[in-house]
Amino acid sequence: MELFDAHIHSEGRSIEELKKMSENGIKKALTCAFYPIQPKYGETLIDLFRKLVEFESYRGKKADMKIYAAVGIHPRCIPPNWKDVIKFMETDFGYVAFGEIGLEDGDDKETEVFKAQLILAKRLDVPCIIHTPRRNKKVITEKILKILEEISFPEDLALIDHVSFETFEMIQEKQYHIGLTVQPEKLSVREAVEILNKYGDEKIVANSDTGFSESDMLAVRKLYDACRNLKITAENAEKFLRI
Amino acid sequence: MELFDAHIHSEGRSIEELKKMSENGIKKALTCAFYPIQPKYGETLIDLFRKLVEFESYRGKKADMKIYAAVGIHPRCIPPNWKDVIKFMETDFGYVAFGEIGLEDGDDKETEVFKAQLILAKRLDVPCIIHTPRRNKKVITEKILKILEEISFPEDLALIDHVSFETFEMIQEKQYHIGLTVQPEKLSVREAVEILNKYGDEKIVANSDTGFSESDMLAVRKLYDACRNLKITAENAEKFLRI
Repeated sequence: MELFDAHIHSEGRSIEELKKMSENGIKKALTCAFYPIQPKYGETLIDLFRKLVEFESYRGKKADMKIYAAVGIHPRCIPPNWKDVIKFMETDFGYVAFGEIGLEDGDDKETEVFKAQLILAKRLDVPCIIHTPRRNKKVITEKILKILEEISFPEDLALIDHVSFETFEMIQEKQYHIGLTVQPEKLSVREAVEILNKYGDEKIVANSDTGFSESDMLAVRKLYDACRNLKITAENAEKFLRI
Repeated sequence: MELFDAHIHSEGRSIEELKKMSENGIKKALTCAFYPIQPKYGETLIDLFRKLVEFESYRGKKADMKIYAAVGIHPRCIPPNWKDVIKFMETDFGYVAFGEIGLEDGDDKETEVFKAQLILAKRLDVPCIIHTPRRNKKVITEKILKILEEISFPEDLALIDHVSFETFEMIQEKQYHIGLTVQPEKLSVREAVEILNKYGDEKIVANSDTGFSESDMLAVRKLYDACRNLKITAENAEKFLRI
């Protein structure tokens, strides 16, 4: 059994903890770009992306876990020269996805940066991990779906993440992938299983979002123990990310 | 009992682990700047320094640990525009020391960057955490001491770190502070106690260097348990850093 945690921030976890995840069957993970303060410089994000691709995969190897990198500008990390960052994202330096990108407050600047990344992803055929916020989740998710439709974004390249009971149906209806974040303040294991029983396991991808904050890094394993479903805890993620 | 770990890389430790350190009496720590890949841009280091001062101290608060920041250009992290980084270090943004700075291979570029930082530290009266490498430790330490003398660097502002049996006496002779890094591949608790018994506890400062690699984050606590000496596990560090 090889589980896949489809959204972590491995930088916030020590190498001993990555080992513990691996020992619990989480043998693969996607680490997503995020900078925990507002970066002053786009250059910081470019070096961060290189770090995710080079150093985090190296730490993963040491922990017997395959760590893949998603790179992109999170709506809370937009530097003044963000266009330079997007230019760098055009080059092929070893990432497998864009992420996390998306909207937090949904203002004009966020929308502009999000859209620019989606247009690039569409052109380069890159899967995207799309963040939805805790606050105002429904309204912001609706805004995200509208943007995706506006630019005819391919369904198979979009995973809408941190989906809740409130936003599940509108995303499934549009045929996008659905990220279920199993965490105390997001979905419990029991709630994730409930969703699974109600809606099936097509295009559903589980993750822990473990990283800089206190969090349950074994969430995907616990979900697997509760449902014994490898599609949502490994296979769907690998298919979406083409791994 | 409030212990002080005088050299960590808190970024490599999760918030749960920082809590564990705090629960074990390590209530204060100095987190030192290091970027785990060669940064392409000095801007990356500037944002890193801001991250250490703002975000790591915030994580510390959540873990009931006071985290102070040391900023500086590690010899393995020299970006092309390193002079811009040093310019930023002139401004007062909340750090308590420069570190880790020093030499790794000891080539001309490293020497130039190290010296520039020392000269700034002397002018601004800032304590410095000075790295010595694993390889060639004796030769490189001699080189570091020579540079310090060349620029008449104040003894009270220099802590030479990762000191070994081989380099201890030459540093003590010059009246610099001495960092003892207690880690499996560096000094064992037993060896650190041996040094203490032989040379006393003046200007000796213990640390774990815990961070990005696998390491014993409770090393300072274990040393305290073995020697019950608060000078080397707290007071000397606080005095040196003027905390």
